[in-house]
Amino acid sequence: MSDPRIQKIRDEIDEIDVELLRLLNHRASLVLKLGAIKHELGLKLFDPDREEEIYRKVAGHNEGPLPADSVNRIYERIIDESRRLERTEVYDKQEDR
Amino acid sequence: MSDPRIQKIRDEIDEIDVELLRLLNHRASLVLKLGAIKHELGLKLFDPDREEEIYRKVAGHNEGPLPADSVNRIYERIIDESRRLERTEVYDKQEDR
Repeated sequence: MSDPRIQKIRDEIDEIDVELLRLLNHRASLVLKLGAIKHELGLKLFDPDREEEIYRKVAGHNEGPLPADSVNRIYERIIDESRRLERTEVYDKQEDR
Repeated sequence: MSDPRIQKIRDEIDEIDVELLRLLNHRASLVLKLGAIKHELGLKLFDPDREEEIYRKVAGHNEGPLPADSVNRIYERIIDESRRLERTEVYDKQEDR
């Protein structure tokens, strides 16, 4: 793997990963803020209409090269992990009080 | 769900999602460039050392609130989908020639 083009592209991917991680964590912090407000208002954590809206918006903005079903599968994981975080950080902790 | 704070945070999440999608697709286009070079050099698609390196780097940059195992699971999906794209766009198409 000593071709210099390979290392150059990998360096670019590493830079994107730092930025991706920053955005994923920023998104997660907003999900937590949202969870705290929903909890305060006595609203349910899971909102199927809102999740549907996220998938629809993301699909509408997708210009590839990732195909729509790949983007959907990545978002399924992001939403799963967001819901898990919201549950452990907002709901479980507040129930413990 | 008429609390104005909820809509405001959802709008911010939607903006992040547009940017996340742009980065995921930029990352995918780099993976395709890398795949084409690896194919040209007769290298294998799957490189466990490089994947290990990606997980390690991402874990090293993670400042939360997403926990390390959540970040890992999201990256597992991103890497799975990257590999799938690389295989269908670079390897399968070139084999068909």
